Amino acid sequence: MKPAQIPTPLKTKPLLTVLGGETLTPPPIWLMRQAGRYLPEYRATRAKAPDFLSVCFNPDLASEITLQPIKRFGFDAAILFSDILVIPHALGRHVEFREGEGPALAPLESPRGLAALSEEESMVPLAPVFETIRRVKAALPADTTLIGFAGAPWTVATYMVEGGSSRDFSRVKSWALGDPDGFQVLIDRLVDATSAYLIRQIDAGAEVLQLFDSWAGVLPAPAFQRWCVAPVREIVLRLKKLRPLVPIIGFPRGAGLGYQGFASATGVDCLGLDSTVPLHWAAQALQPQATLQGNLDPIQLLAGGGNLKTEILRIVGALGRGPFIFNLGHGILPKTPIAHVEDLVTTVRSRS
Amino acid sequence: MKPAQIPTPLKTKPLLTVLGGETLTPPPIWLMRQAGRYLPEYRATRAKAPDFLSVCFNPDLASEITLQPIKRFGFDAAILFSDILVIPHALGRHVEFREGEGPALAPLESPRGLAALSEEESMVPLAPVFETIRRVKAALPADTTLIGFAGAPWTVATYMVEGGSSRDFSRVKSWALGDPDGFQVLIDRLVDATSAYLIRQIDAGAEVLQLFDSWAGVLPAPAFQRWCVAPVREIVLRLKKLRPLVPIIGFPRGAGLGYQGFASATGVDCLGLDSTVPLHWAAQALQPQATLQGNLDPIQLLAGGGNLKTEILRIVGALGRGPFIFNLGHGILPKTPIAHVEDLVTTVRSRS
Repeated sequence: MKPAQIPTPLKTKPLLTVLGGETLTPPPIWLMRQAGRYLPEYRATRAKAPDFLSVCFNPDLASEITLQPIKRFGFDAAILFSDILVIPHALGRHVEFREGEGPALAPLESPRGLAALSEEESMVPLAPVFETIRRVKAALPADTTLIGFAGAPWTVATYMVEGGSSRDFSRVKSWALGDPDGFQVLIDRLVDATSAYLIRQIDAGAEVLQLFDSWAGVLPAPAFQRWCVAPVREIVLRLKKLRPLVPIIGFPRGAGLGYQGFASATGVDCLGLDSTVPLHWAAQALQPQATLQGNLDPIQLLAGGGNLKTEILRIVGALGRGPFIFNLGHGILPKTPIAHVEDLVTTVRSRS
Repeated sequence: MKPAQIPTPLKTKPLLTVLGGETLTPPPIWLMRQAGRYLPEYRATRAKAPDFLSVCFNPDLASEITLQPIKRFGFDAAILFSDILVIPHALGRHVEFREGEGPALAPLESPRGLAALSEEESMVPLAPVFETIRRVKAALPADTTLIGFAGAPWTVATYMVEGGSSRDFSRVKSWALGDPDGFQVLIDRLVDATSAYLIRQIDAGAEVLQLFDSWAGVLPAPAFQRWCVAPVREIVLRLKKLRPLVPIIGFPRGAGLGYQGFASATGVDCLGLDSTVPLHWAAQALQPQATLQGNLDPIQLLAGGGNLKTEILRIVGALGRGPFIFNLGHGILPKTPIAHVEDLVTTVRSRS
């Protein structure tokens, strides 16, 4: 039996407790991109590798980076240091990160551009990620949960088709809206690879998984159902069948009205809320179906000041009476002062 | 008495009929940015001026461009050819449009950067816009409605503070979330200037106004209420007091759950829907309070094919049983084939 499938220790960790549907006061806390450039120790470790992907595939560096924010702030969860674009890399696509420019991929124009790799073959380049998970798991404090993650198929597809970040998503949307049958081939391939990848993350020691659908907010409603909801549902189905005890967090960032019904349609245990989601509505419409996670605006954390505390207390007040994980609504920004993060943790934890 | 305040002819124009709350089959149609780069006649006229702002302030060119899509497609409305950044220009800020790069403004860092101009002084540079409206109004077919517009204060503020387009809105959000009292000064100034500008558009001949809040989707819910809802409500209040018969379309693009209650909170007569808004929900939750306008994805129009027709019929089917204006969910894209626009108009109008 695999570690993640032994129920007893699950309940001793605050993050797993609330993911099981219980309410904790104060709520557990972690921050998206908590192991990142705002930390001087991250920048020092990052400088030891020639480029960003080399860090992701170096278990020495990646495990050290994953643990840094735990040591500094005592967050309730560590999230694997990696990137959602390791999946295109594993599928044989050229992926590089140019300093200060973001990711650059060879744009995919049709499913014929995908290499004929078996599932086993595509998992080979990801072996260092699983080694990182094993090392982090062994080093974590007993009450800290290890979160694995992947990009949701739609978001990963946007990078593969656009060749990087995009302003209007015109290539990938033209494909998805103009030739849905062809686009389905790409999405199916991503569902397969992502499911296989996440199963292996669990087996290496990940106790929770998060699916990042960072660009869920750019599709018309029927396309959102087909390209964001359905692939996540399929991944969740496969994971729940094979590793039923591992909670899954869905994060359809920017989904707006798409948040309604997302948890029941996909089967995720927890919904990550972006910063625009109204909390009163979320508490009423979403929290009965799922644990909620979020949603402080990273700019509010960057700006600090008296409004930061007001906003933190507003969020905890609105969502803390049900199963809830305090987090940001998007990744922490590189220029965020460490003192603001310290204030955040103190404020969340001092509320009882 | 001013032309726009004579009620009788209002009801003879399809756009004004549905803005009055009636249902028309087929619905009236116009497209955001319908006078734009996808038209060869636009590109020819545009080439006669040295830069984009010069076109906006040249009544010969701007009126010609405004009328071009009416002549070609017979849309039910013409929208003034101008730009939302004429307001920062009128307030004394440096605004330029660099070819292929988008707008560039001198970034505003505090309310002290605003020139001390009276309302009358700030309206002086806008005189050519009002002249354009007068000329277009005189030239329009009898059943075609003339729409004036402005940017909503929040969106105009994003450009003024960021100095142009932005990916993460970190400057303007830091200001708005970190120093709301200072930011209120800027927003109040924009409310004043925008209200004065729109009153003059009405008096020049605009029969309907649209307020574009293109970046309404980037704020936490309480900030959305303060910086998107409240300023639009204030503008609508002033307009309705002084020119009560002119319908107002609000377009809080990307507002997601913020669409709920937006019409009743602001007093707009019509809600412009971006392409992500689910139509079944919109018909139930929004259409009883307001005429709806939207929301074909511009990429779907660009892509064309069989799915385009399916999508058009889905939108008309879902919203056409109530007061509805067919439009896109965002501006038409420069590479859109004219044949696709012709197909769109035919499909919408052939449905009876």
